[in-house]
Amino acid sequence: MSLLAIGTVAFDAIETPFGKTDKILGGAATYIGLAASRFGKRVNVVSVVGGDFPQEYLDMLESRGVDTAGIEVKKDEKTFFWSGRYHNDMNTRDTLDTQLNVLETFTPVIPESYKDCEFLMLGNLDPDLQRAVIESLPNRPKLIVADTMNFWMDIKLDALKETIKLVDVLSINDEEARQLSGEYSLIVAAKKIMEMGPKYLIIKKGEHGALLFHKNEVFFAPALPLEEVFDPTGAGDTFAGGFIGYLAQSQDISFENMKRAIIFGSALASFTVEKFGTERIQSLTEKELAERVKQFVNLVQFDIELENSL
Amino acid sequence: MSLLAIGTVAFDAIETPFGKTDKILGGAATYIGLAASRFGKRVNVVSVVGGDFPQEYLDMLESRGVDTAGIEVKKDEKTFFWSGRYHNDMNTRDTLDTQLNVLETFTPVIPESYKDCEFLMLGNLDPDLQRAVIESLPNRPKLIVADTMNFWMDIKLDALKETIKLVDVLSINDEEARQLSGEYSLIVAAKKIMEMGPKYLIIKKGEHGALLFHKNEVFFAPALPLEEVFDPTGAGDTFAGGFIGYLAQSQDISFENMKRAIIFGSALASFTVEKFGTERIQSLTEKELAERVKQFVNLVQFDIELENSL
Repeated sequence: MSLLAIGTVAFDAIETPFGKTDKILGGAATYIGLAASRFGKRVNVVSVVGGDFPQEYLDMLESRGVDTAGIEVKKDEKTFFWSGRYHNDMNTRDTLDTQLNVLETFTPVIPESYKDCEFLMLGNLDPDLQRAVIESLPNRPKLIVADTMNFWMDIKLDALKETIKLVDVLSINDEEARQLSGEYSLIVAAKKIMEMGPKYLIIKKGEHGALLFHKNEVFFAPALPLEEVFDPTGAGDTFAGGFIGYLAQSQDISFENMKRAIIFGSALASFTVEKFGTERIQSLTEKELAERVKQFVNLVQFDIELENSL
Repeated sequence: MSLLAIGTVAFDAIETPFGKTDKILGGAATYIGLAASRFGKRVNVVSVVGGDFPQEYLDMLESRGVDTAGIEVKKDEKTFFWSGRYHNDMNTRDTLDTQLNVLETFTPVIPESYKDCEFLMLGNLDPDLQRAVIESLPNRPKLIVADTMNFWMDIKLDALKETIKLVDVLSINDEEARQLSGEYSLIVAAKKIMEMGPKYLIIKKGEHGALLFHKNEVFFAPALPLEEVFDPTGAGDTFAGGFIGYLAQSQDISFENMKRAIIFGSALASFTVEKFGTERIQSLTEKELAERVKQFVNLVQFDIELENSL
């Protein structure tokens, strides 16, 4: 019945037009865990950090329903570090520094108590590691969701293709969908990518929302128009965590329920971008989340009776 | 009770990655008229063409419910001509040639029988001309919708600001909204622009859909994800024509009905881009339009009961 997430737990240093941070808590599994645990189900996280990683971050994750027993601490090494600067439009960024540190030799080891998982979220990682995790589980999970990025398409495309054969839902952005499929049209790209294995495809378009594809069905969720995007870091991982967390809690992987999961993921991501790092998603209340989902409903719902319109 | 549209009737020559055309029928008022007349209400068009403009185009417009008595024919002059080439992404284009011809001296003269109009659509034109049209009407229409473009913001900003003070609904794209307001966030931009006069603002985002703003309300309609965008020319004008045509037919300018009008405008625009020029919108059947609106419903509708979700 459990939800397992694999991914990075990291330090980020971020510069945006609104300011800059020192090393703060980041990493795909961090955002996935904080978002997925919102729905009341405990989230088991497998990751690795160095001896420099503060216990208070682990305590904070635990207090929010993230099980950190699977986060290995390598005392003599340093935590993965990423530093980036966002441009004015917040859609593009430059990587200023990447220090792999503990990630260089990371081999995910799944604790025995995590292995009987029903929902598996593979955060962006080397596709060989993602596949090793799937293969290490005694029973295939009910749903496997995987995130990846253009970096792996550039340097490990064959390994990536092997991995996505095994997943149910692939989550990538629009440029990555075009790169992976060689097609500009996202509709054509989605068809080609689903032929590679995934039964469902999520294409994230940042401020332009997200598309969910399954067979011949397509669902679109907008991003909430915000007065200010303060820091986009972690938005995609928050979205993915919200998506799988909602599905795991409701135990319903129908297309109709995936639509709801996409809306909850989008709503959670809209909070993440309001402040630096995990600050906003940590402080988020249930009432705030419910109000924001209501804003999504108001944003897109309309009422057309076709018989009377034409 | 009538619907009046002012704008260009033109020749276009278009190059896309899929092919190129000779001089074909184009112009904002052409697309507006063909889209607005879909809803059963006759559309009065005021424009100007040269002696080189084929009678068969005027006959085609008449046969589809567009009244062409207000399209002045200047026998000794030539029709406005625009030529452009779209890039691979179809979102950017280069203008190859612009020959203003009859447009250089165009002063819209509204036939007496058109003057008592309830719905006025001002296609993209010199803002001084747009304002002159409004001021020439004996009674203020129930709803004035205006389209404009960055070109007028560059060279006639003060005149444009005078004009938009007088309109109810302004329709521009995202980059134009940013230019007009000096704000990057579309939410902040919309607030500033509505303070300039328009009670409603439509921000068109091309393949990323459209936003409708009114006071503190916002509605988002996606563009339908298409397998292939063949020629984007006229999509914005088709959208605007569908929007005002739907409102004029239903005689309901509530925000809820404007949402429906946005969906119908988006559905019509999704046909325009499927073929060169006006070809697809001319051949469109009521059944096809109804089916496409249904696709929009399926694309965005979801069902969340908030009480049970959290």
